[in-house]
Amino acid sequence: MDYTIQLEKIQQAVGILQEKNIDAWLTFVRETEHNADPALPLICPVNVTWHTALLITKSGYKVAIAGRYEIVNFERMGCWDECIKYDQSIQPALLEVLDRLAPQQIAVNYSESDTAADGLSHGMYLTLQRYLAGKPYQIISAEGILNSLRGRKTPAEIARIRAAVALTDDIIGRITKYLKPGLSELEIANYVHGEYAKEGVIPSWDTAYCPTVTVGPDSPQGHVSPSAEYVTAPRNTVRIDQGVVLNDYISDIQRVWYLQPAGETSIPQPVQHAFDAVRGAIMAAWDVLKPGVQGAVVDDAARNFIVTAGYPEYQHAVGHHIGRTVHDGSTLLGPRWERYGQTPFGIVEAGNCFTLELGVHVPGYGLVSLEEDVLVTENGNEWLGKPQTEIIVVKV
Amino acid sequence: MDYTIQLEKIQQAVGILQEKNIDAWLTFVRETEHNADPALPLICPVNVTWHTALLITKSGYKVAIAGRYEIVNFERMGCWDECIKYDQSIQPALLEVLDRLAPQQIAVNYSESDTAADGLSHGMYLTLQRYLAGKPYQIISAEGILNSLRGRKTPAEIARIRAAVALTDDIIGRITKYLKPGLSELEIANYVHGEYAKEGVIPSWDTAYCPTVTVGPDSPQGHVSPSAEYVTAPRNTVRIDQGVVLNDYISDIQRVWYLQPAGETSIPQPVQHAFDAVRGAIMAAWDVLKPGVQGAVVDDAARNFIVTAGYPEYQHAVGHHIGRTVHDGSTLLGPRWERYGQTPFGIVEAGNCFTLELGVHVPGYGLVSLEEDVLVTENGNEWLGKPQTEIIVVKV
Repeated sequence: MDYTIQLEKIQQAVGILQEKNIDAWLTFVRETEHNADPALPLICPVNVTWHTALLITKSGYKVAIAGRYEIVNFERMGCWDECIKYDQSIQPALLEVLDRLAPQQIAVNYSESDTAADGLSHGMYLTLQRYLAGKPYQIISAEGILNSLRGRKTPAEIARIRAAVALTDDIIGRITKYLKPGLSELEIANYVHGEYAKEGVIPSWDTAYCPTVTVGPDSPQGHVSPSAEYVTAPRNTVRIDQGVVLNDYISDIQRVWYLQPAGETSIPQPVQHAFDAVRGAIMAAWDVLKPGVQGAVVDDAARNFIVTAGYPEYQHAVGHHIGRTVHDGSTLLGPRWERYGQTPFGIVEAGNCFTLELGVHVPGYGLVSLEEDVLVTENGNEWLGKPQTEIIVVKV
Repeated sequence: MDYTIQLEKIQQAVGILQEKNIDAWLTFVRETEHNADPALPLICPVNVTWHTALLITKSGYKVAIAGRYEIVNFERMGCWDECIKYDQSIQPALLEVLDRLAPQQIAVNYSESDTAADGLSHGMYLTLQRYLAGKPYQIISAEGILNSLRGRKTPAEIARIRAAVALTDDIIGRITKYLKPGLSELEIANYVHGEYAKEGVIPSWDTAYCPTVTVGPDSPQGHVSPSAEYVTAPRNTVRIDQGVVLNDYISDIQRVWYLQPAGETSIPQPVQHAFDAVRGAIMAAWDVLKPGVQGAVVDDAARNFIVTAGYPEYQHAVGHHIGRTVHDGSTLLGPRWERYGQTPFGIVEAGNCFTLELGVHVPGYGLVSLEEDVLVTENGNEWLGKPQTEIIVVKV
């Protein structure tokens, strides 16, 4: 078992606790196979069954308390100062450790805004309240800790994301050779799944709509399963939104193709105009994306650009974190909508990896939509793959 | 997309709401790709990104409220009386529906005891509290609903579990042919993963310790990753705990082998005695397992048997539900320990599928441990596969 990333992230967590001046961070989980806490894989590479408490303090002390049959997995990591096993209840060991270390605040994994910091179930919260009844500890949200811990990618994490993006770029090239008239969205999705299987990777998100394939002017837009109903024809656009999980890290990329009939020598003006507007909006976002900027400000730039170009606003955020998952935590490059909670007010940090994405629908042709993956650094942004700068033309 | 099971379960949910006299059941989720609610797959086959509310009432009325780009997935199911889409916030639509349907109680998915009924995160609970502030609805736990809904397997579900068990039985046969001296736990686990890949299935639980392979007298017991350190030798037992996910349903089976050296004509007495005690304890549990019995009573039977036979108590439950997941909800056939909350006090129902499992360590030889998968019916129990009635001998 490879613990490289978990050891990096645990060390990073200590620094973040010091920076934010929070005494202790507690990840409290059970049965993570079907009740996952998105924070757990950052600090522990396997699932747990019984109640498990992983405590990291500002002073760098690290304690794992786990069921008898699972403690070995923590002992093997070699980074926990104490690995404590229990049989009947975790409560005595947890209280003994907390009473000994006496943190003033304990940050736990809940958040209204940030799903990636909201791994503590309400039932587990009630259990913790019951365990700690009468104790002086102040329970606070770990959302700030997790936003930074998840968002600031380490070198090993960035290398893995680049590898996932590179593989996706390669598969995009294969799709270009495969496309022709008469293919349904479902056939195209099945082809992509076949390429994933050859590479031994799985889709970045739900197989039912990764890839999302949108063919021609009539297909519905969004997180929709590819259907057998919409079939490629000359003068259609084809838009594919996809990504792969490679070595636990993901890619998330949209590309657009145009099926050009014989005799047609240029891309129809409405399609080209839409592409230029979408690409321009992405570059507008890129230009303001840097450490210290609020997420919503990045979205504003793209949104103003696309509206000024004469298109409707996109009904989503222009960008989201990527990493272990396809929506990898808070600080959304998104509009200040209630639906997004506090995430658009988050601040971009160096080491963040974001998508930049939007699209417009072109009547009579179809969806024109792009999505690029970007790394933010102190010295400017880097594309994580090769951005799409022109429509991919398939001669048919 | 195949909705067979979700349509069966949604219909079953209405009956359970009537039986338990609860006005409405609300599943409230977002970003289920990494913050899964174990209840969601029972009623919706795809993940969602934005806040989504799935409301089912006692009168059989069903409403899905989802983000604009995801509502199509619910419309395609054909069973929701209303499919309502939103852009900026789910709150207005949710309040409009609740005010119109006016349920007295709304059951939501949280539970201290039952992880499979604890899919509502604490952050989402706070959001719901905020949305419903000042409203008269009584928020209650859906744990009773989910215990029955998840626990009472429909015919389509039972058929899928049987198929997963049958494939596992077949792979067990292949392992018998493969075993020989000189194989490390890790090599054996890799072989099993290879057979899974050939069949296009994945492990029932974490790949890191499914299968769990325990070789000889010195290997640690439990949910531990197979290691390169412990290598098969003559007169070892080999215990493998494994299962596969086939068509969304799982198996969970333990088998034990004995590597018999040339010239040895019978199984050593300590190993045979342990096997007979373990098998006897499983049959003692089987004999009391029936609808209406408390889970702990089934555990008592096996626990008393194994202790009376002169072995230490096992430090876990003798059985758990299986279904979509390997610990498929509450009513545990387990001891009345704080760690297990209220689950050992649950009542066995017809349609439940359980494991029956325990083991003992035999000094000098290794682990002797069995696990069978069982269906409870009104007319007696059925094995879901072929139970192990004698030690599998591998001549070496």
